[in-house]
Amino acid sequence: MSFRTIEAARAALLDQELMSTMGFSIDQLMELAGLAVAQAIYKEYPPSSAKNCLILCGPGNNGGDGLVAARHLKLFGYAPTVYYPKPTNREIFTGLTTQLRNFNVPFVSDLAPELRSCDLIVDALFGFSFKPPIRKPFDAVIESMLQAQKDKKKIIAVDIPSGWDVNEGPVAEEISDYQPDLLVSLTAPKPCAKLLKKGALHYVGGRFIEKTFAEKWNIDVPEYPGIDQCAKVD
Amino acid sequence: MSFRTIEAARAALLDQELMSTMGFSIDQLMELAGLAVAQAIYKEYPPSSAKNCLILCGPGNNGGDGLVAARHLKLFGYAPTVYYPKPTNREIFTGLTTQLRNFNVPFVSDLAPELRSCDLIVDALFGFSFKPPIRKPFDAVIESMLQAQKDKKKIIAVDIPSGWDVNEGPVAEEISDYQPDLLVSLTAPKPCAKLLKKGALHYVGGRFIEKTFAEKWNIDVPEYPGIDQCAKVD
Repeated sequence: MSFRTIEAARAALLDQELMSTMGFSIDQLMELAGLAVAQAIYKEYPPSSAKNCLILCGPGNNGGDGLVAARHLKLFGYAPTVYYPKPTNREIFTGLTTQLRNFNVPFVSDLAPELRSCDLIVDALFGFSFKPPIRKPFDAVIESMLQAQKDKKKIIAVDIPSGWDVNEGPVAEEISDYQPDLLVSLTAPKPCAKLLKKGALHYVGGRFIEKTFAEKWNIDVPEYPGIDQCAKVD
Repeated sequence: MSFRTIEAARAALLDQELMSTMGFSIDQLMELAGLAVAQAIYKEYPPSSAKNCLILCGPGNNGGDGLVAARHLKLFGYAPTVYYPKPTNREIFTGLTTQLRNFNVPFVSDLAPELRSCDLIVDALFGFSFKPPIRKPFDAVIESMLQAQKDKKKIIAVDIPSGWDVNEGPVAEEISDYQPDLLVSLTAPKPCAKLLKKGALHYVGGRFIEKTFAEKWNIDVPEYPGIDQCAKVD
């Protein structure tokens, strides 16, 4: 647990710098982030053992990372299904949903049967900019997701487990039991990553920064193996 | 050599469909294409044996793929150098060059010393929309590149070897001797890929289409191994 972390306010500034001074577009960053999530899932839960994935997508960029991951998971041989109850009209998001529809990835509105039939649940509801309380319909979504985890479904959290406080972790009562099986931190772990349960898997993804940039922000570039876009930490 | 190919006019239509009906942005497609090129290079010429890469970038999208590849090569542990004599002002291209400058990737104007010191040359000058003749300064660039190949430098061609006729291959006199060591076809091989010399390496990259889409266009989706963005063919 020796990795350096970055707090929410600084993570937001870092993202701003990536998209201004550093010259990245949101499309590029989201593509590499979602690809990293899909790769980490493949490494831990290959499609030969866990084919059905339910991707829970929130209204912001965390949801966008989930939409990208869903496309790559489909191309990797999984059967993903997407729950995306609050789509936004920004071009990047309408593009991502169009791609998925063309890939015949189902968008579902009734979660219960999907939660029963899936093997994996990708929690792409809220990221580091989340502020409590958890609004409808996501309060019920998280509750159902945690119930499904008790039925042995694996939960993969994108960047932070939804509903967790970025610094303090699972402090809100309704998610106090929530521990993902796999966390994929993007760019750098947030402080709450230190509060993962023992035995939880932890990857860092988002291979678009270099050591000099990382040092300036007091974070680490993980040792990415070969051409991978994600690296296991801890 | 049993793969199906796609001619230039249909490849242009396919790209248009990817960016309209299919919902992709140029940023996404170029990111995945450039990543595929960098991955194929890593698989055949890992940085432990060939660290110095010279990326020759043309004025169009082929050059953009090269700029993306240069960034990933840097992150994979190579020492890339970029030659990009005719930069365009489109946002995607200015973003890509900004990223590379922030990654301390040198942009060079004098090719001769770079051609002497490099191990690998990435030919990202012209893609499938190239029409002869080869204009200045690229005629001299290709001539120097081919001279360097005689000095045992490896050439990696992005999508098609520059100056080749998309259908007929190396018919123009000035490039009649040009055979790359590695070709990375993007989305699907162009007809000239059948004219690669015996022993040349051939990959397909651009993992963003599915079997149904490929069938509609009468092309193949290669068997991508695991999470790779490129697949060896032949």
